[in-house]
Amino acid sequence: MSYEGTDFHGFARQPRQRTVQGEIERVLSEVFDCPIETVTASRTDAGVHARMQVIHFSLPHERIAVDNLPYICSRQLPVDVQIQSASLVDAGFDARRSVLWKTYRYSIMTGLIPDVFWRRYAIHEPRPLHVDAMRSAAEHLLGEHDFSSFCTARAQQISKVRTVHRIHFIYDDVSQCLQIEITGNGFLHNMIRIMVGTLLNVGRGKWQSTEVQQILRGRDRKLAGPTAPAHGLCLWHIEYPGIDHLLDDA
Amino acid sequence: MSYEGTDFHGFARQPRQRTVQGEIERVLSEVFDCPIETVTASRTDAGVHARMQVIHFSLPHERIAVDNLPYICSRQLPVDVQIQSASLVDAGFDARRSVLWKTYRYSIMTGLIPDVFWRRYAIHEPRPLHVDAMRSAAEHLLGEHDFSSFCTARAQQISKVRTVHRIHFIYDDVSQCLQIEITGNGFLHNMIRIMVGTLLNVGRGKWQSTEVQQILRGRDRKLAGPTAPAHGLCLWHIEYPGIDHLLDDA
Repeated sequence: MSYEGTDFHGFARQPRQRTVQGEIERVLSEVFDCPIETVTASRTDAGVHARMQVIHFSLPHERIAVDNLPYICSRQLPVDVQIQSASLVDAGFDARRSVLWKTYRYSIMTGLIPDVFWRRYAIHEPRPLHVDAMRSAAEHLLGEHDFSSFCTARAQQISKVRTVHRIHFIYDDVSQCLQIEITGNGFLHNMIRIMVGTLLNVGRGKWQSTEVQQILRGRDRKLAGPTAPAHGLCLWHIEYPGIDHLLDDA
Repeated sequence: MSYEGTDFHGFARQPRQRTVQGEIERVLSEVFDCPIETVTASRTDAGVHARMQVIHFSLPHERIAVDNLPYICSRQLPVDVQIQSASLVDAGFDARRSVLWKTYRYSIMTGLIPDVFWRRYAIHEPRPLHVDAMRSAAEHLLGEHDFSSFCTARAQQISKVRTVHRIHFIYDDVSQCLQIEITGNGFLHNMIRIMVGTLLNVGRGKWQSTEVQQILRGRDRKLAGPTAPAHGLCLWHIEYPGIDHLLDDA
């Protein structure tokens, strides 16, 4: 699935709120003519976008060809969410538990004047950024760590240990857009946005890149930078074992 | 200037309507503290976007550095329109009359499922298109012609003769988006959108590509295809003689 998060109150279904899961389950329930409950790879927050999100659900019957599901649903889904492909998987597959790794991208317009076509998908940071310092700081976040400092204080996960595999900086000269691509085996609540808020403090020269190491060791949310705004974040890719057809990541 | 046309009632100022020119003139008048009237290269219709639009106006005084104008205005302009650069020109320069050529792009999503991130900037055409036939048809539109068939019937221009220099087809595999880039010395009202509507009829196999020649010769709006929707169109580039700094067309 893909969706533009702008007009959704997040992914997870909630009573009386417009959510991605709410819209998808409503349409799937109409199409299959019985209630459908879905399980998702990643419950993105309000305002966060997804280029590739994955859900699974149990087929109630076989009266609809699964291959045709994206097309059948596309006419009933609102314009800001679409199912891009659908396929049968083994009963052991779980959209959440089977994830090998996920990639998010965070987008920052760095030009003096914001780009009107990027404004829904990127934050605007016109002050000069020291990207090399941000890159050095990011290296301290790679590997397996307790990410308590990079997690909203009200998070309920018991273990705050996660592994970040890769943090990659992409800069496009034409749009003057800086994208930070972060790949890991899983992320705590707001983890990417707090990492980005922390890296931005380094980029602005407020913090040295080595300070990130102390922030990580302190295991205290108050040590890290602010939570970067939701609309700059996009769930970019999710990798599962042995499922090649989802991986057309050109 | 650039703007996203979605929420504007077109470019040209109109009483009690939100227009691009209305917003720009309101902000310029506030900044210069006196009424400013602008002249534009191209009065785009409601819903049409611009990556590069050009206006000129007479400076009422020199109390503001022209180089700083984009930044000063960016804080007061709404999020969907921005001035990207400003500079002093000779008194003989006219944003409309001095144009050498203009380029527009029309965008068509050709995948079975519409792309949520392109929906404001491209129409959706899931039926297969014969792009080679469209390319052949487009060749008949190149050069100097009377474009009466490709002009809204209520157009007031006396001469319907224009020169189309180039029609270029760009296809992106990842987004499955087809873009038709049209360059000419000037365009009649709705001319690009009627050309695209006609080329789409060829692409769908409804018309042979050679029929475009007869449509052109007939000089009758009723012969051509429908006016393609506004939101697929974007004013892409405007070329002026001897003005290099506007031309950073990467």
